[in-house]
Amino acid sequence: MNNKVKGNLIIIGGAEDKYGDRRILKETVLLSGGNDSIILIITVATEYQKEVGNEYIDIFDQLGVKDVKVLNINDRQDANKQKYADAIYNASCVFFTGGDQLRISSILGGTLADEALLRAYEDGLLIAGTSAGASAMSQTMIVSGEDDDSPRKCTLKMAPGLGLLKGAVIDQHFAQRGRIGRLLSAIAQNPYMLGIGIDEDTAIHVMPNGCFRVIGSGAVTVLDGIHIDYTNVSELKPDQPLALTNITLHILPASYGFDMNIRQPLLTYDTKQEETSIAHL
Amino acid sequence: MNNKVKGNLIIIGGAEDKYGDRRILKETVLLSGGNDSIILIITVATEYQKEVGNEYIDIFDQLGVKDVKVLNINDRQDANKQKYADAIYNASCVFFTGGDQLRISSILGGTLADEALLRAYEDGLLIAGTSAGASAMSQTMIVSGEDDDSPRKCTLKMAPGLGLLKGAVIDQHFAQRGRIGRLLSAIAQNPYMLGIGIDEDTAIHVMPNGCFRVIGSGAVTVLDGIHIDYTNVSELKPDQPLALTNITLHILPASYGFDMNIRQPLLTYDTKQEETSIAHL
Repeated sequence: MNNKVKGNLIIIGGAEDKYGDRRILKETVLLSGGNDSIILIITVATEYQKEVGNEYIDIFDQLGVKDVKVLNINDRQDANKQKYADAIYNASCVFFTGGDQLRISSILGGTLADEALLRAYEDGLLIAGTSAGASAMSQTMIVSGEDDDSPRKCTLKMAPGLGLLKGAVIDQHFAQRGRIGRLLSAIAQNPYMLGIGIDEDTAIHVMPNGCFRVIGSGAVTVLDGIHIDYTNVSELKPDQPLALTNITLHILPASYGFDMNIRQPLLTYDTKQEETSIAHL
Repeated sequence: MNNKVKGNLIIIGGAEDKYGDRRILKETVLLSGGNDSIILIITVATEYQKEVGNEYIDIFDQLGVKDVKVLNINDRQDANKQKYADAIYNASCVFFTGGDQLRISSILGGTLADEALLRAYEDGLLIAGTSAGASAMSQTMIVSGEDDDSPRKCTLKMAPGLGLLKGAVIDQHFAQRGRIGRLLSAIAQNPYMLGIGIDEDTAIHVMPNGCFRVIGSGAVTVLDGIHIDYTNVSELKPDQPLALTNITLHILPASYGFDMNIRQPLLTYDTKQEETSIAHL
């Protein structure tokens, strides 16, 4: 982890509860500063910016946030406007909606908005993202791959992401779309990278100390390839199934956490304090 | 493993190739004795015994086996007929078709046919099974569970299986149906058990020495829970997602193997010799 970073991330596996308990979105508001939050919704991932933006405005309104705005960035010209960068600097939370992660990286990458995100995050901004907005957090992100399949060579497409989360590759809709094969394919290519698979209505809250804790109704799957003692990934032809031995796997539901610095799970046991007990990690 | 056993198992993850390369079925014939095999197809798992039986008769005919019979066992009275038990003793290979694994165990369990299977296997019989016929090989078998879901408490149903494969729980259609969650739920309940998830058109050949090798076009996922250092499985309410830490995971495609005695993968490297090279393990 980058020791300079003071910001937090909330990385959501998609399909977060929007009308019931809304545990993840409530936590987002809490971490952002409660009613006094300034939440900026960035809809660049989707082609339906108006509909998606309005939905999240309503939700954060209902959760009592007084200042919610949508930033509709349609192209790189927008992303280079100083007023948009300023809106990012002024926010207490930036929220990336779902859509296509390649829209996020190809439109924002290298622009003033991108620079603002990185700087503001280092200075303490909370950045949340769901689905495509979750994938884009990685330095190298998963763009597409086969669901419900064994890990295979070359069926996975990756691209440079926003780079907010170092040392890990995120995958979302994880259990629901049977994505362990594609996340294994990703870490096989560089076992230093942690694979973090986040279920629907589930999120990780990544803290400045390099630990994360799990929020929501599903589980987070951590794939640690650091002890892989054999893989044939460099020898195969495209589409052949991979061999991989000695991966460490952790399944972490709400209130559990993980220390990415030492690659170890954190057991909090205290599920009652889940919503406010960040300090106990 | 039981040191008395001289027989072999071929445990197939379902949907094995029947009209193309037929790698798994050819291997079954080879191990059974080639053209001189006496193959007995047991259709007890399915309610469509005639159709399924005829299909496999045609396939093994095409593969040059001179003596292929179907044993239509419909109920426990059938399963207690001495002539059926004798047919098992006389076969060189018994092949269990797919269907419902609970039909296999509830109709065969404790009958003369069941006893014949165990004894003949100890004496050297090759027993193959696909899909439901694969699941039923375990001592405690998976009956049903949620596909494409996180591991949760009580969503998995297990039952006593035929007990041919000791120390492991089998799951089939593994990657294709997103079943890692349910297999993790199974091993969480007793981490001594290896979890063996077999993809479609993929099989393990279990040898008398307690090793298996992989055959077919997909991969086998081995989940080893022996080093699990934490699980909350005994504390949860039904349907809550499990926490599990420090599971070891191996992905093994064709020509790789696993030594179940020492819980270690076997790397053969030599893919060209796959069809005949049993000795190299």
